[in-house]
Amino acid sequence: MGVPADQAHSFAFELVAQDPRTGARAGLLHTPHGTVETPFFMPVGTQATVKTLSQQDLEALGAQVLLANAYHLYLRPGPELVARAGGLHGFMGWKRPILTDSGGFQVFSLSGLARIEEEGVYFQSHLDGSRHLFSPEKVMEIEHALGADFIMVFDECTPYPCAEEYARDSMELTLRWARRCLERHRQLQQEQEVPQALFGIVQGSVYPQLRARGAAELAALDLPGYALGGLGVGEPRAQMLETLEFTLPHLPTAKPRYLMGVGLPHDLVAAVGAGVDMFDCVIPTRNARNGTAFTRLGRVRLKNASLAQDFGPLDPECSCQTCTHYSRAYLRHLFQARETLGLRLATYHNLHFFLELMRRMRRAIIEGDFARWQAGFLAAYQD
Amino acid sequence: MGVPADQAHSFAFELVAQDPRTGARAGLLHTPHGTVETPFFMPVGTQATVKTLSQQDLEALGAQVLLANAYHLYLRPGPELVARAGGLHGFMGWKRPILTDSGGFQVFSLSGLARIEEEGVYFQSHLDGSRHLFSPEKVMEIEHALGADFIMVFDECTPYPCAEEYARDSMELTLRWARRCLERHRQLQQEQEVPQALFGIVQGSVYPQLRARGAAELAALDLPGYALGGLGVGEPRAQMLETLEFTLPHLPTAKPRYLMGVGLPHDLVAAVGAGVDMFDCVIPTRNARNGTAFTRLGRVRLKNASLAQDFGPLDPECSCQTCTHYSRAYLRHLFQARETLGLRLATYHNLHFFLELMRRMRRAIIEGDFARWQAGFLAAYQD
Repeated sequence: MGVPADQAHSFAFELVAQDPRTGARAGLLHTPHGTVETPFFMPVGTQATVKTLSQQDLEALGAQVLLANAYHLYLRPGPELVARAGGLHGFMGWKRPILTDSGGFQVFSLSGLARIEEEGVYFQSHLDGSRHLFSPEKVMEIEHALGADFIMVFDECTPYPCAEEYARDSMELTLRWARRCLERHRQLQQEQEVPQALFGIVQGSVYPQLRARGAAELAALDLPGYALGGLGVGEPRAQMLETLEFTLPHLPTAKPRYLMGVGLPHDLVAAVGAGVDMFDCVIPTRNARNGTAFTRLGRVRLKNASLAQDFGPLDPECSCQTCTHYSRAYLRHLFQARETLGLRLATYHNLHFFLELMRRMRRAIIEGDFARWQAGFLAAYQD
Repeated sequence: MGVPADQAHSFAFELVAQDPRTGARAGLLHTPHGTVETPFFMPVGTQATVKTLSQQDLEALGAQVLLANAYHLYLRPGPELVARAGGLHGFMGWKRPILTDSGGFQVFSLSGLARIEEEGVYFQSHLDGSRHLFSPEKVMEIEHALGADFIMVFDECTPYPCAEEYARDSMELTLRWARRCLERHRQLQQEQEVPQALFGIVQGSVYPQLRARGAAELAALDLPGYALGGLGVGEPRAQMLETLEFTLPHLPTAKPRYLMGVGLPHDLVAAVGAGVDMFDCVIPTRNARNGTAFTRLGRVRLKNASLAQDFGPLDPECSCQTCTHYSRAYLRHLFQARETLGLRLATYHNLHFFLELMRRMRRAIIEGDFARWQAGFLAAYQD
């Protein structure tokens, strides 16, 4: 049993360096669309576009993997259309790897009247109210049609706070769904030329025993990678990090570990130290559109009146196109005048900051200097 | 009297070629920010930004001159702030030439309760209702603070249709204002290191005698360039071209001629044939944001359902980034999903089309082939 040998090879994960004093690790993750360096951050392109940026921008920024969302793309433009376009790679014109989230989070957060049953989730489209069922099998069919390199199992993302009994039932349901996903995934793989890697998602809220069981049972499925879900959903930061610390030891070290939906710069720095390899989050892009930029020292509010006559760059230490070509005063003007170029230039800067942060951490890990670098970053960064 | 010799030299206009069968001409226009090739089209950057595009995009597109608006920039962020940033060039980060429109059109079209008197126009800000006076002198002070290479006199842009008596009074007022603009401009120039070229604006609605008088009296002021205003404001296309034909002979051939606010691709092609050297219009950018793209054969509606599964490029003959990287189906998806990348990619294509059209016309004029090329274009283009 297990995934075919050629597929496992397609997604081989090599550890290149491990920090001697923390859990941080640097690796290489092979995919049918090229090899990427871990740890990495995935810009979020929910609707097959990272808001305001072009795919050429993302290449120039050095984005290695983009994230898209199965729930949104299922509703619009539909997986059949995307498949006919040559999958998401062909549809978007993006040659590097892509990961699709299964939509487990979105069916609850966006749709009306979601109802969970053993079979799956019955929900209404947030676009037109139409009724749909997402079963584990259906979601695999959608993610196979979308054709991303990495696809996620269909899970129930428990909210925070969450009673332990609900969290246990939900975690067990997520495990049963994961096995159904894997079975359908294996069937679909037989008909496909380009392999896709199915990642499991560990749930269990903030309860150590639930997380440990969830991780162990998923590990037994020998999937090519594992994600931690249900974090970054409102729990205190300390609890998020604690959950990370007690869950990661239950996951195989030889597989990539993905922390879903987290987070702020200091969260990424802490989580890499705990041993996480992959991240995605809307924070750099969404906060940019709200007028918040990130720098090594913390946030800059681009709408702030104090920037009106500040003719220096947004971040004097930054080498991105925004910081080398435009002033804080001009950026503030664009936000005041509600000009979309402001959203775009801020998004470009924030993604540059996040992607550069990941590259910097990888370098520190390889140089054996991560612990010192991490302490320095966390001391300077003001949330 | 007249403008100082060094300033006149700064804006020297050289005719390079004249088409033997039409009025079309190709030239070089020197400015303190480099020499530009005529005929040219100016992308409209009302608020010191061409909506959705970066200045790097505009450079890559080969935009030679950008247009900004004195009315909008006076209200926000204010001319003093722009002056402190090093003028519009410094504020926007744009090294090539800029032209500012005086805001004569906007005080009427955007502000509430505009009242015209001999002194100037009393109006209320469309942003906060505050009360202001634009006199010719005030507008010169604003345009000098903004620091564009080309600045426009303050005029009354008569609407269409317009009774002859009103058009005559208005044209005469515009002439008196032009003389006051020139006087204040000369005073302000004394204090400035970088010269600016003040262009006159011929008004007179669609009345031949009024246009002729307006042109002749402005020509007597020996300004470095002349614009035709009050066109593209709702009059039938034939009347616009007719007005152009009977007005241009009254303007000096040795000065650049600028047709303000026009127009569609076939309007540009016709107007270049009549002898116009400079254009600006919101059509390529605004229509892009409404989902309309231009090609050699006419318009493409990007929201059209027929594009949903059309995986070919927007325009197979186009070499722009949008057409070489993205499909019609993807563009339609972006518009359906209200993603701003759609507005940006369509804007990029449309400006590429307009700017390439101008370059193509210049080449045809220099090659002595404009009349044939023009007939071919107009036969193929379906409005």
